[in-house]
Amino acid sequence: MTSPGVAAVFSLAGGRLDHPTMTTTTLSPPRSRTELWRELGQQLRVDSIRATAAAGSGHPTSAMSAADLMAVLLDKYLRYDFDRPDDPNNDHLIFSKGHASPLLYALYAAAGAIGDEELLTLRRLGSRLEGHPSPALPWVEIATGSLGFGLPVGVGIALAAKTVDPRPYRVWVLVGDSEMAEGSVWEAFDHAAFWQLDNLTVVVDVNRLGQSGETMHGWHLMSYAERLRSFGWEVFPIDGHDVEAIDEAYAAAIETVGRPSVIVARTLKGKGVAAVEDKPGWHGKVLPDPEAAIVELGGRRHIRIAPAAPSAGPPARTYMASSPVLPTYEVGTQKATRRAYGEALAALGSTREDVVSMDGEVSNSTFSGLFADAHPARFFEMFVAEQQMIAAAVGFDVRGLTPFASAFAAFFSRAYDFIRMAAISRASIRIAGSHAGVATGEDGPSQMALEDIAMFRAVHGSTVLYPSDANQTAKLVALAADNPGVTYLRTTRADTPVIYPPEAQFEIGGSRLVHASLHDEVTIAAAGITVHEAIKAALRLAEDEIYARVLDLYSVKPIDREALLDSLTATGGRLVTVEDHWPQGGLADAVLDAVADSGLPLQVVKLAVSDLPGSGTPAELLHAAGIDAAAIDAAVRSLIDPLAIP
Amino acid sequence: MTSPGVAAVFSLAGGRLDHPTMTTTTLSPPRSRTELWRELGQQLRVDSIRATAAAGSGHPTSAMSAADLMAVLLDKYLRYDFDRPDDPNNDHLIFSKGHASPLLYALYAAAGAIGDEELLTLRRLGSRLEGHPSPALPWVEIATGSLGFGLPVGVGIALAAKTVDPRPYRVWVLVGDSEMAEGSVWEAFDHAAFWQLDNLTVVVDVNRLGQSGETMHGWHLMSYAERLRSFGWEVFPIDGHDVEAIDEAYAAAIETVGRPSVIVARTLKGKGVAAVEDKPGWHGKVLPDPEAAIVELGGRRHIRIAPAAPSAGPPARTYMASSPVLPTYEVGTQKATRRAYGEALAALGSTREDVVSMDGEVSNSTFSGLFADAHPARFFEMFVAEQQMIAAAVGFDVRGLTPFASAFAAFFSRAYDFIRMAAISRASIRIAGSHAGVATGEDGPSQMALEDIAMFRAVHGSTVLYPSDANQTAKLVALAADNPGVTYLRTTRADTPVIYPPEAQFEIGGSRLVHASLHDEVTIAAAGITVHEAIKAALRLAEDEIYARVLDLYSVKPIDREALLDSLTATGGRLVTVEDHWPQGGLADAVLDAVADSGLPLQVVKLAVSDLPGSGTPAELLHAAGIDAAAIDAAVRSLIDPLAIP
Repeated sequence: MTSPGVAAVFSLAGGRLDHPTMTTTTLSPPRSRTELWRELGQQLRVDSIRATAAAGSGHPTSAMSAADLMAVLLDKYLRYDFDRPDDPNNDHLIFSKGHASPLLYALYAAAGAIGDEELLTLRRLGSRLEGHPSPALPWVEIATGSLGFGLPVGVGIALAAKTVDPRPYRVWVLVGDSEMAEGSVWEAFDHAAFWQLDNLTVVVDVNRLGQSGETMHGWHLMSYAERLRSFGWEVFPIDGHDVEAIDEAYAAAIETVGRPSVIVARTLKGKGVAAVEDKPGWHGKVLPDPEAAIVELGGRRHIRIAPAAPSAGPPARTYMASSPVLPTYEVGTQKATRRAYGEALAALGSTREDVVSMDGEVSNSTFSGLFADAHPARFFEMFVAEQQMIAAAVGFDVRGLTPFASAFAAFFSRAYDFIRMAAISRASIRIAGSHAGVATGEDGPSQMALEDIAMFRAVHGSTVLYPSDANQTAKLVALAADNPGVTYLRTTRADTPVIYPPEAQFEIGGSRLVHASLHDEVTIAAAGITVHEAIKAALRLAEDEIYARVLDLYSVKPIDREALLDSLTATGGRLVTVEDHWPQGGLADAVLDAVADSGLPLQVVKLAVSDLPGSGTPAELLHAAGIDAAAIDAAVRSLIDPLAIP
Repeated sequence: MTSPGVAAVFSLAGGRLDHPTMTTTTLSPPRSRTELWRELGQQLRVDSIRATAAAGSGHPTSAMSAADLMAVLLDKYLRYDFDRPDDPNNDHLIFSKGHASPLLYALYAAAGAIGDEELLTLRRLGSRLEGHPSPALPWVEIATGSLGFGLPVGVGIALAAKTVDPRPYRVWVLVGDSEMAEGSVWEAFDHAAFWQLDNLTVVVDVNRLGQSGETMHGWHLMSYAERLRSFGWEVFPIDGHDVEAIDEAYAAAIETVGRPSVIVARTLKGKGVAAVEDKPGWHGKVLPDPEAAIVELGGRRHIRIAPAAPSAGPPARTYMASSPVLPTYEVGTQKATRRAYGEALAALGSTREDVVSMDGEVSNSTFSGLFADAHPARFFEMFVAEQQMIAAAVGFDVRGLTPFASAFAAFFSRAYDFIRMAAISRASIRIAGSHAGVATGEDGPSQMALEDIAMFRAVHGSTVLYPSDANQTAKLVALAADNPGVTYLRTTRADTPVIYPPEAQFEIGGSRLVHASLHDEVTIAAAGITVHEAIKAALRLAEDEIYARVLDLYSVKPIDREALLDSLTATGGRLVTVEDHWPQGGLADAVLDAVADSGLPLQVVKLAVSDLPGSGTPAELLHAAGIDAAAIDAAVRSLIDPLAIP
């Protein structure tokens, strides 16, 4: 890899400021490449100041510290076709310090991708230039702004190019020094070195000042450098305002082989404007006198840079994707849904080359290991680093793949912010959580997901699936592959009976009346493990000529409102909800939300896990929590005969 | 600090195995301290095997790797009075690798804290010996089992002894090598060095094998050692089965001044039993032939160790805690609830010495900075490390303090697993999240908490508070201080009108009918920012002689069911819920959950944030989301006259 060496295109006409309150300065054109970079750096600062001044808010000082670093990158090293953001060989530029968005937008303006008029719409309603970068803009692939998210996604994008879809692109990530305090970035540093991602270059903008004070390590560049070297990175500590040093560091970074590279740059927050430069108290604030600041920076420039074209690489891939031959299971046999997940995923991988799988070092529990056995080149061991795992999934999605990430369901709570940010990033990823609820058994509450449905329901555009049997699981795995957004699939640890024939069809947003009669007086709304308990209860009740139907709400979000209303109408509004989850935010909340405005007078008994469980067998714990067949039986009876209080 | 030098007490009578399927071996008493350690290590292994065999599940091999390390610790270095677990000067021993619980319980048995009969109740329903350690046992202060949680809490406990409550104790944390992949441990390593916690010693059990395969770094001890040194730790790489080396490392660790110390120990998973030793595939599994394994280990021992007494230190502190003189605000003035939070917290700190505050480097946004200004010795800057912040709060709670942790509400999603584990740990901590909802404005969706209510509701035993005005905020801050469990307080970025007089009283579980008449036809259920929108709507509607009441549900969990039912009864079951949150898991779900079984026929309109917001002013975004006064107005009208669809 060498630097592209494409000459910069620039125009330095002394123009008029578009922002009426600001003055104009006429400049001479730069005489050398280094002077161009310095001028471009000033332009990026000026435009960051102009945009934030027009917005009345934003982070100009955090943009100004990294302006020289990004100027040299844009002019000499970034290989990107702004007219074709979907070119699969484009470099990737991620602002992990998303609050420096004015700098990113100024850079887009310098590249001619956005006009000056749009630049000044920053932070306005309807503008593509949001306060923090988002895919509202075609050149932004993920949303950033939650520190520590962008870098791990960058690792995922770089990993894709080193493995399933070899590409010549480089991933550039701008990281703030405050952000270095986030554990998630150390997961990323660990993984990037492990995977030998020499196509990844990180720029750490060490401007010393966080939001409320100095960072933990201030300007001790060697603090960062030693840590990063110990993590296996090639490290270049430099003065982040010395464009020649920046150029040398980039040149050396792209020549680095076998390991990722990081430029640790000492910078000044608010660089170039004395009123704010290296001064605390100016984080996230418009400059006190933007007009004077622009004058101090030498006025507005009009440099235009045409970045180098992407390196030559293969055309966009079209993945072979025929219908999977899903595993089937015989009704009446026993099979854990987590195992069916693994078997279905492996089958899906056989007919779809776009499917990749990753696991948090529990692939023998989630059964993603079956995919790993069948398709080792498309399986990624992410070790016990759930945030990096989700970020890798997002990175693979950015590259057009179809990722499935798995772990114990409880441990996705470790990555909730990343899941939230994946949704804001408009990513389509699939997450399979095993070991749901008290049905997990002896391991105790730390291993039991009892909040996962609440957590995943409250993700924008998410889908939440909770299959009760193996055939249903297999079908839902296949549907998840083509489902947009964040799709969550909850599986159960223990073997459960196969209750649906292999030919049964299921759909996202669907449900299944799994037990019903003409005489039903109560609807039991269940999902996953509790479907089996509900069927047991219904059979027992029928012996006493009490008839209750069981509605399997395997699609918790979106939920099958129509089927719910039909059932409730048929059963006089009598409803038992039963779930292996805390009472908040789970199945019952989803059900009540769906039917609340139906006008039906309801009688509801909610069964959920209220007390903190301990260890025990699954059966003991389902009983202790009051969500087993006996509890359902009693709840149904209490609705039929209110005097028979359970 | 020197080693206590207390002679070990042991009894090595050749006893009978309590577990009937196992054989007995008679042993000679150990002849030296080192032989005692070796024997004790074998005893801990044998007892780990016995307990897991009796349970039929568990993690014997992960216990066996660390047995020698814990044997030397128990006999010579741990200063702990098992009869007085509440002695404030006791050392703290945390198994961050919680799955090694059989080793911890075997150690308690060796110390005489639990009997052999109880040891064999491991993982049974009702046993205090859960699959992963929990405070069901008096010597366990936090629950572990979610890797990467125990160490950061240990940092918090060590930090307390170095700051607000100086104590001679040492914090010992056993960490697994798989766990070193979690970003959260690197937050802990970073902070421990920053705070110079030389009262913290970590033992990393590098047994090379994770659950499903080899760890990222295998037995490359120097990989770990170099990283830890670069993070500022004193590092002792040793053979974790060489008791003399272990002894030397502990001796050097406790002499280390000015920095935390870590022993990086090369060990063998399943050490001592050939069938499983250093073999993959034996994670979390009972040994294939426990009886033969015990014979191979030399049979059962009966060594009893009386650990050294805690170092001399001050008696338990009683904190001065008189009623706070809370700030008051004049009705009709404007004040952001986040600012009232800071002012109330600072006031609370003035009369309560037990109150400590910590922030994720945004104290000038959350206004915890006001507490920092008033009580600098009790404020802790946790930088942008939300997991370490929550863990520190848990650690302070362990030490009897009253922690308040604050950050942007959205960023607590980064620490959701830690919050979940705090609840399982029976910790009482208070979390204040600012910048809630689209009312955050221009910063865009990455900075807007829209899932936080769902997330915090689904935490065991949690309380969720969402004040609408400054006086209410102040009162709720004071109530939060004495509230058990995880208490979440959601605050708003923008100034909002003060609507309650300073003398108004509020309570956890309460609500406030803030606008009502005798003619009300609709109940508007609101909280926080939407209370103000609801009042505006009600006033506007009244001009058209449409009467709606506004119920301020500032206590979202527990929610005031009685007031809701009263209001709904008074308004014919017509209900508008309005919240600055995703539609899932928030206020509306809480309301419907409370009233679903009331038997009241309901007509409900739910207003919440459905579409992904962008940037804009708070007013623009409230309007765009359909949760402002205009939307509420239309919703109320639609309930009064169903033909007037909004």
